[in-house]
Order: sequence, then structure tokens, then C-alpha cells
Amino acid sequence: MRNVSIIGIGQTKVAEHWDRSLRHLAADAVLDAMKDAGIDTADALYVGNMLSGLLTGQEHLGALIADFVGLRGVEAVKIEAACGSGAAALRMGYTAVAGGMHDVVVVCGVEKMTDTVNAETTTGLIMAADADYESIHGLTFVSLNALLMRRYMYEYGVQHEDFGHFTVNAHQNAVHNPHALFRRAVSLEAFARARMIADPINLMDSSGIGDGAAAVVICPTSMAPEYGNGKAVHIRASSMATDALAIHDRPDPLWLSAVEASAFKAYQQAQIGPRDIDLFEVHDAFTIMSALSLEASGFAERGKGVWLAKAGEITPQGSIPICTMGGLKARGHPVGATGIYQVVEVTQQLRGDAGANQIANARLGMAQNIGGSGATVITHILEAKS
Amino acid sequence: MRNVSIIGIGQTKVAEHWDRSLRHLAADAVLDAMKDAGIDTADALYVGNMLSGLLTGQEHLGALIADFVGLRGVEAVKIEAACGSGAAALRMGYTAVAGGMHDVVVVCGVEKMTDTVNAETTTGLIMAADADYESIHGLTFVSLNALLMRRYMYEYGVQHEDFGHFTVNAHQNAVHNPHALFRRAVSLEAFARARMIADPINLMDSSGIGDGAAAVVICPTSMAPEYGNGKAVHIRASSMATDALAIHDRPDPLWLSAVEASAFKAYQQAQIGPRDIDLFEVHDAFTIMSALSLEASGFAERGKGVWLAKAGEITPQGSIPICTMGGLKARGHPVGATGIYQVVEVTQQLRGDAGANQIANARLGMAQNIGGSGATVITHILEAKS
Repeated sequence: MRNVSIIGIGQTKVAEHWDRSLRHLAADAVLDAMKDAGIDTADALYVGNMLSGLLTGQEHLGALIADFVGLRGVEAVKIEAACGSGAAALRMGYTAVAGGMHDVVVVCGVEKMTDTVNAETTTGLIMAADADYESIHGLTFVSLNALLMRRYMYEYGVQHEDFGHFTVNAHQNAVHNPHALFRRAVSLEAFARARMIADPINLMDSSGIGDGAAAVVICPTSMAPEYGNGKAVHIRASSMATDALAIHDRPDPLWLSAVEASAFKAYQQAQIGPRDIDLFEVHDAFTIMSALSLEASGFAERGKGVWLAKAGEITPQGSIPICTMGGLKARGHPVGATGIYQVVEVTQQLRGDAGANQIANARLGMAQNIGGSGATVITHILEAKS
Repeated sequence: MRNVSIIGIGQTKVAEHWDRSLRHLAADAVLDAMKDAGIDTADALYVGNMLSGLLTGQEHLGALIADFVGLRGVEAVKIEAACGSGAAALRMGYTAVAGGMHDVVVVCGVEKMTDTVNAETTTGLIMAADADYESIHGLTFVSLNALLMRRYMYEYGVQHEDFGHFTVNAHQNAVHNPHALFRRAVSLEAFARARMIADPINLMDSSGIGDGAAAVVICPTSMAPEYGNGKAVHIRASSMATDALAIHDRPDPLWLSAVEASAFKAYQQAQIGPRDIDLFEVHDAFTIMSALSLEASGFAERGKGVWLAKAGEITPQGSIPICTMGGLKARGHPVGATGIYQVVEVTQQLRGDAGANQIANARLGMAQNIGGSGATVITHILEAKS
């Protein structure tokens, strides 16, 4: 199969965009990415999105967005894997380009979560969980994660305040990201004081939702000089793994098997290990997910993910910087778009274009996008051009 | 790229399944297809579905169904392209197998449209159209097609009763299909008498909705003897094309450009022409769509699709048999599953397993699945093993 590179990136600010509908947000990101890549056409468009049907009464986003961005006629579909929809769409694009079906593919993640009239976002997000065995009991997606966090604290003797280091790092990193939802630092004290949402998860444990879109253009590495802007970043690995949706169906609720499977398949493809990764865009939908992901991805021992944060190892100066542009917590989490935001941010880092947030000597970056509470996990490892 | 074959098929009856939830329907079809192929594992599962979020409060079907059918852990996503979701999922599976990403892929189309509590099916189906420019005016998906039908009748001097031949053929073919929703013949008189839905579309112009699931197992043709049941059918062509969602955005509303592009790309890949096709599973969501699809696919001149039906050429004894197992009209149209039902039925024909509905000497069969009123079109051409 062919090696694949990212030759263009685009993103909107994550915000409440009163004046931009879903198609406008997608177009802003796609047209930016195509301009960045220096292309005016493409072979296919894959769109990652979770909630457009329920929240905006619009499905069929593939053809809709293709037409709106000037690509009428091309192959175009929507890919859905809950909050992992963005990276799942990239995985489909990677499959098509690596396998030879297409040369130039645009992958867009988009979500319009505010100013919608048809349903509440909370109703939408719980569709990531098992409707017949979890949400039927009245669980929200926050309360599902609260069960995991409570169990983690009990099993490993961790205090709630220990999770605050994830939030402090994410917000600090968002300050200089113009596309971030929350561009302000927060203190450990502010974390401790935050309003409770679903005990023990408080407001500061939770990522912020918003409207947003991000896009990448990919092509075979061999064609990158022909199409690209001279800033190509290479996809060294792409992998997806799944698990039971319902947490009670997993042998060990505190071990994200699909994170482990996806990450280690990616390490194998890239022929590296976790120690080689220079930065890691982790799926920090809640602080508990950061801890569990770091553990199952091989960056911390079981039950020690929180200590990695407490020891400062996740900051830009630490051994494994995470959420380098703010993460889901502070850049914001427009769910179906998040996986592409992560890949766009890793690309910025590997291009050396991350500004005040630049990780020194970043050569290998990992982006990991999670659907549900760990049921779908997509991992991409990117490498700076040599 | 590698040649790809279908080595297993499965389908449920299209019906109101009071006792089967969405995951049970999917499992019935997937497990049948895996049994048919003689396999007990697979590399990936792609699920075509349109309405599960809105109607049943469940997204994230990839991981959900993978787990439920015993494939926990494999790559799994949902693909959505409105009523074209099923064949779009097969297109993604074909891309992965032809390109070398996976060897054995299960593709399932599933839709649960009855006994749902969260929303009306009519609300769901209009999400295939343009929410901001079409459905906002109160159009239903039936009334959108009614506009097309009215225009067709005006432009080409066709009477409503002329469309009845599509319905008579579909119902006649469904009589011997145990999986069909409506297993009864209807007369031209019954067609003319049917209750009006959205003038000029009456009940007998319209396909019947229902619950259902269908699945296929695909693998490289070179491996088909190793995995399959000796009944492999080969995918000679797979193509997808798109158009504007909103009908008013198309230069000629009566010409389905994406049907033309998709069909002729498929002919080119298979190195054949429409005259070589022995049977055609057409997307007869409404009788007007049958006429327009036959024209844009090259089986009839512009405005003459209806005359092909009137001349009897679409029956099992005609020059281009369509809807050979009942079509969307009489087998039923569980929207996200339909594209896979079509492919399963073509496979039955090319295996010589279509029973009373067998098309004599069928060697090349075409399945064409449409999302919206022609905005996404996926065409597959299958060939019997030589």
C-alpha cells in the first residue's frame, strides 16, 4: 500500500457560531485546507459528523458539503462513530488513498451543537452509549463517565483534586490558540471550586461543546511535492479498534481495551513505541478519559495516569505533552469534528507552526480520537518531513 | 488493486418486526451472511444506516453491532448517505478490500423504521433533502418526488396511469420472495384506484417502508475459494457520484446527473455497456425514480423510461428485468438497508438461487442505490463466476 501524507489543513474557531450554519462551518474549514494544499479539486470528500440529523434535521452531509464547497459530483459520504467520527472519516480517507482508490481526498469533521432547535445536545450525546442497556436508565454521557471516575478514585486511592492538573494544562495551552473555545488559564483552586455536574465530575472535568469544523487534505506521499505546499506531514500509522458500548459488558471498566489495541497497532505499524512520541493529542472529553487513555496507550502504569499529570509530564515541557493546543477541554469538543482538530493540531506542531505552543523538536505526534466511553478508538501517528 | 468477490449473503424479511430491535435485525443478517460464507471472524464491519439516531436514540452502530455479532474489537463504523447508505457502506468495504487494507469485510445495511418512539419516519426521511432550502418549506420526501413526477408528466406528455407498469412488475416479482414486505400481485386498476399521497404520487407509486437488515461478506477474489462456499460472485465495478441535494440547484431536474455519472463510471470499469446487463435492481423508491434512473443509466431515451415499462421490457422476460425480487416497492424499503438488499438479490440471481424469480442465463447484474432525490448514487456491477 502507498504511504500517505497530509498536504493541507483548515479549521474554524470552536465557538457558538450564531451566524454560521453547519454547511458554512464545513466550507470554511474545507476551503482553508484546499487553499493550504494549493488544490482546487479532489477525488472524494469524507465527512465525520455525529449529530446533524438529530440536532439540525439534516443528514446526507457528504453530497451536501461536496456541492457547497465546489466539489459537486465527487464521491462523498458521512462517517459516524460517535465522538470518534472525525478520525474515523480520516481512517476511511487513509484507506482509500493508501489502497489506490483515490489520489486526493478531503476529510472534514463538522458539528453544529448550539443554536439548534430540534433536540438537546445531552439527548444527542447519549446516543454514543448503549440505548437499550445504558441510556434507557436515564444516564447522561456525563454520568456514565462519572461512574468510571468514581470507580477509578476508589480503586486507585486518587482524590478528585488530583485530576485538576489535566484541566490546568489544557487551559494554559489554549491561551495562545486562536481557534480555542476557552482562551483563559485556570488554577487548581478554580478547578476544585467548579460547579458539580454529575458527582464526581464537575464543570472543569468536562470538555466544552461548541460549533466547529476542521479539515485535512491527504494524498500519496509520492505525490505530495506535486500537490502540496512543501509542508507535507506523513501519516506513519492509522488504526481503529472497538469494544462493547456498554461499560458493564467490559471485563474491566477501568481498562480501555480498544485504546490499547488501537495504540499498539499504530506503534507496530510505525515501528516505534510510546517513548518515541513527542506529543499526544489525547481524547480528554473528561479528565478521567485522559487518565485512562494515557494508561492504556502505554504512557503510564495502570492507575498512574493521574500521577503523570501531577508530576508535570503532560505539559509542553514534560516527557509527553498532551492537549498542546488546549485539547477537548479548552480548545472545545464539537464532537464529530474533534478527531480532525486533533490531527490538524499535530500537523501544526510537526510543521513547526504551533507558535507559542510549539513543542521543541517535535518529530512524531499521535492523535487519538474516542467514540463513546472507549467503544471506538482511532489512533493516527504523524511524522514531520525529514 | 485487487478484484473483490461476494462470498456470503444474509437478509431478514422486510416487515414490522415487533420483536426484533435494530441490533437483532443486524445480527440476523450478519450471522446468516457469515454462515453462508463459512467464516467466524472478519477484519472489519461497515454498517449502512440512515435513521437510527433520530428514530431509536442510538448512534455508534459500528461498534454496537460488531460486539453484538461476536466481532468485538474489529474496525467498525457507520456510513450514512441517506437512502444510499447501504451501498455506500459496500463501496467503503470494496475500497478497503480492493486496496489491501482488509481481507474479509462484512457490510451490513440495517434500518428500524416502525415501532419507534422518538420521531416520525416522515421527519426522518426528509433529512435526505436540503434542510435549509427544501424541508424548511414543509416539503416531505414524497412531495419532493411528486414535484419531479408532475414535471415529468408535463414535459413528456405522460399520464399517471402509465407509471403503473412499474408497480405491477414489482409486486408480481415479490410474490415468490419470502423476504418481501408485500407478497401479493396488484393490477393496473388497483394502481389507478390507490389513495393519493402527494398529487400525483399515490400509495402504489410509493415504496413501502419497514424494518430490515441485509449483509454481505466480501474478500479478494483470489481468496474466495479459500474462504467461500464455492458460490462467489464477483464485483466487476463499484462507483459513487453525487449531485446537489436541492432539486432547484440542478440545471435539469429531470436528468439525474449522478445516476448517469455513477452508471457510466461503472460501465467503464467493467468494460461493458448497458446492453450487457442481464438484470438491474433499480432504486424504485417512487415510480418516477424508476423512470428517471432507467433513462440516466442508458436503458431508455430521455422521457422514455415509462415506455420501457409499458412495453414489458422490465419484466423477468423483458430485455432489462428490474426489481426482480420486488424492488423497493414490494420487497420494501428499510432505507439504510436497501442498497445491501439490492446487492444480495443480484447475488441470488447470479448464483442461480432466485427460485421462481430466476432470470434465465443471468451473468451480469447491476444494483443502483440512490440517496435523496438523486444526490448520492452508488452503482455496483456483479458477475457470475465463470
